[in-house]
Amino acid sequence: MTTQQLYEQIQKKKSFLCIGLDVDLNKIPSHLLELEDPIFEFNKAIIDATHDLCVSYKPNTAFYEVYGIKGWQSLQKTINYINEKYPEIFTIADAKRGDIGNTSTMYAKAFFEDLQFDSVTVAPYMGKDSVEPFLAFENKHTILLALTSNEGAFDFQTKNVDGKELYKQVLETSKSWKNSENLMYVVGATKAEYFTEIRKIVPTSFLLVPGVGAQGGSLAEVCKYGLAENVGLLINSSRGIIYASNGTDFEEKAREEALKLQMEMETILVSSSKLKV
Amino acid sequence: MTTQQLYEQIQKKKSFLCIGLDVDLNKIPSHLLELEDPIFEFNKAIIDATHDLCVSYKPNTAFYEVYGIKGWQSLQKTINYINEKYPEIFTIADAKRGDIGNTSTMYAKAFFEDLQFDSVTVAPYMGKDSVEPFLAFENKHTILLALTSNEGAFDFQTKNVDGKELYKQVLETSKSWKNSENLMYVVGATKAEYFTEIRKIVPTSFLLVPGVGAQGGSLAEVCKYGLAENVGLLINSSRGIIYASNGTDFEEKAREEALKLQMEMETILVSSSKLKV
Repeated sequence: MTTQQLYEQIQKKKSFLCIGLDVDLNKIPSHLLELEDPIFEFNKAIIDATHDLCVSYKPNTAFYEVYGIKGWQSLQKTINYINEKYPEIFTIADAKRGDIGNTSTMYAKAFFEDLQFDSVTVAPYMGKDSVEPFLAFENKHTILLALTSNEGAFDFQTKNVDGKELYKQVLETSKSWKNSENLMYVVGATKAEYFTEIRKIVPTSFLLVPGVGAQGGSLAEVCKYGLAENVGLLINSSRGIIYASNGTDFEEKAREEALKLQMEMETILVSSSKLKV
Repeated sequence: MTTQQLYEQIQKKKSFLCIGLDVDLNKIPSHLLELEDPIFEFNKAIIDATHDLCVSYKPNTAFYEVYGIKGWQSLQKTINYINEKYPEIFTIADAKRGDIGNTSTMYAKAFFEDLQFDSVTVAPYMGKDSVEPFLAFENKHTILLALTSNEGAFDFQTKNVDGKELYKQVLETSKSWKNSENLMYVVGATKAEYFTEIRKIVPTSFLLVPGVGAQGGSLAEVCKYGLAENVGLLINSSRGIIYASNGTDFEEKAREEALKLQMEMETILVSSSKLKV
């Protein structure tokens, strides 16, 4: 998928919502546990109930790997289901991978070719030759960790490196890498005031923003500082939507929560004149 | 496995060799491709031929994920085979994971409990609360990326952060984390002269050292600056051993290459008085 196609979906759905499919067997409705693949059944129900309100789904691979081969099968079935039934959806493998050159190529193939995700999250610590192998795939996107939403972000990411915070160095430096037009960035919603500075470095790059809701970030604040001409934001919500209820009404409740966010986003898009007429 | 048990294995085998199981179907002997699980059969043969010469095996997860569910099955069979037949071996999942707290716990469970590896490599970019969930597992080890063996290491890792290179900040900071005694570190052999400074910060921590051989690092140089009282080094070789031949003699040739390294290590251990009498 191209970023232009993503932008068009945002316009059509009046939403820049990404739903995180971080599925924990201890948290899903108990009636699903009797089924053969509870994780896939849960995802399928959530996707069917919310696909018109969001532009992206983001399974975090940790929640699948923890169940071994069975978990990897649930992940495969989930991405296949989205790609077949809702091909307009922008899919993100939240995998936070990164390794030396030829090894990163293997990861890129795993997520872009074998599983057919549109994008994957990647850690920047190993530098250029660990990220460029991901960038080499056409119409695929590499979402580089810049400023994450957790406490530990202050351990290294905000430390001063040659006169500039490390996450800003990551943003700046990555712009010079080959095929950098395929880069997006993770920026946590818990640090909304940082978006002004970030937009000076990457004015129109898409930013994947976790941390709205459960982690305490504010949608309005993020948009105030982070909205770009092309919208340029994907706001992720996981637990707040998918675990809105753990009863038999979980799909409806998930839809209600997704709808609240979509409507808030529509209001923001209108008031900031970001909707095409 | 405890580090004391690892140390005893090093003494017994007079080796601190780790063999990287980075198995690429395009590089293994063609006669294996007819078998049902060529990757596992390749690993099994390599392991049987070299287990007395090394103290550790390190599959890199990228090389398994690229084959999807089938690859994950090969990984599972490989680790099971090692744990059942050679339980004295220290196993490393070279996965370079790391995420926010509860998600890192999922990764830790995937590698420590489901697959039953002794250790996993982890990226430090997201800081303390992304690493401590791994450290919470008793007698399991978290091998934190400090200074990697690739060119991109110079993009961020060696940059000056508040008067000290980032990789040194990572080493220093990580020492204050809970259960930090379960930490080991990745330090590339291609930068042997850095080991002196690193040993000032982590005098006895085990260092996993990639980059000897194919990537150009020298074993003698690494040992000169990096050997600790408790040896404290695991030197990884992957391609130089496992792809020594791609004919039907691949096990013998792999053994020959492993033996060369083991003998070199034995000489170094003797000359530096690191062998117990």
